[in-house]
Amino acid sequence: MFAGAQLSLYPMTDTFVDVILSSLDALDPWRDRLRIETDDISTLVVGPPEVLFPALRDLYASAASKGHHVVLRATLSRGCPGEPDDPICQTSALANPFEPLASRQQAALDALKSAPDTGQIADAQFSLYVMGAGDHMAEITGCIDFLRSSGTFDRSKNFCTRLTGDAGPVFATLQEAFCRFGPPNGHVTIDLTVSANSPSKR
Amino acid sequence: MFAGAQLSLYPMTDTFVDVILSSLDALDPWRDRLRIETDDISTLVVGPPEVLFPALRDLYASAASKGHHVVLRATLSRGCPGEPDDPICQTSALANPFEPLASRQQAALDALKSAPDTGQIADAQFSLYVMGAGDHMAEITGCIDFLRSSGTFDRSKNFCTRLTGDAGPVFATLQEAFCRFGPPNGHVTIDLTVSANSPSKR
Repeated sequence: MFAGAQLSLYPMTDTFVDVILSSLDALDPWRDRLRIETDDISTLVVGPPEVLFPALRDLYASAASKGHHVVLRATLSRGCPGEPDDPICQTSALANPFEPLASRQQAALDALKSAPDTGQIADAQFSLYVMGAGDHMAEITGCIDFLRSSGTFDRSKNFCTRLTGDAGPVFATLQEAFCRFGPPNGHVTIDLTVSANSPSKR
Repeated sequence: MFAGAQLSLYPMTDTFVDVILSSLDALDPWRDRLRIETDDISTLVVGPPEVLFPALRDLYASAASKGHHVVLRATLSRGCPGEPDDPICQTSALANPFEPLASRQQAALDALKSAPDTGQIADAQFSLYVMGAGDHMAEITGCIDFLRSSGTFDRSKNFCTRLTGDAGPVFATLQEAFCRFGPPNGHVTIDLTVSANSPSKR
């Protein structure tokens, strides 16, 4: 299995370099379980979902706490047939896809109960893509049903779904969406945008 | 058919609102062929690919010309089974998917010859997702073969491909990738990031 994300932080301020660099400390508790490589467009973070999502949450919360309008963007992927297996991605977080959809939805809701709060609001928008054999729309609509019950569901938009709430439950909900839906050995991706302190909301 | 994008501009400057608002004029020549709706996270643009991609190109080039580090992000989609047909999306730009891959690759390369230059460099990174019946990895690798010959190919990264060059051929290449690959009646999406004036490149 190979899993990870290409992620970027976009602070809408002249001091964007300082905001980015000072937020990266939030990744420190997770670094020994991740492989990280940066270029001028994005940072590759390779690792299992149960590390990736808390790491993204902490990075986002740290960046948001500076008070500027800042956006975290990530392209997340698991199970891409074009990527090699990597031991660092070994995970126990993926649902057995042969388990019925209703049971996976309930397990996802149960997992949210232990999500900690961060004190930072996250306005998130994302698309879940499920590829390969199987009924990809059944998995996507099954995931959307879970999202509607998750407590952070805001609304559906064309091409994506909005979540809002404390970054803790929001990123936990994203993790459940990523881990519990998709066909056996599926290639599952998420196109994610999380916005903090937007002046359009004031 | 339903096609469109959720797009956002992220100018890394205190004057980000001014940069965004002053760049939107670049959409004016395209507005009568698009449906546009904005909220605090993104702007929905609905319309056919042959209008969408030039409109995104002009928006990007206008924003980049202000000189700040700015990123354009878009979630593009066509043929999503969950979206209704919309007459504004009527298009003649999609390849016949029964046409052999080699022929579609050549048609894509031919189409690039007429791409105009904009004078703005675009560093782009994107993922193409092909869903539904059919061999999605054959279509994706067929698209990547086209990209390698496109003249704007930079390199492959985990989960995505980088293009670089003038925004004219870069957005034309993205349009060809979006239109000519994917199974019959396929659901095809692109997760796109285009970066201008990054200090990390200096």
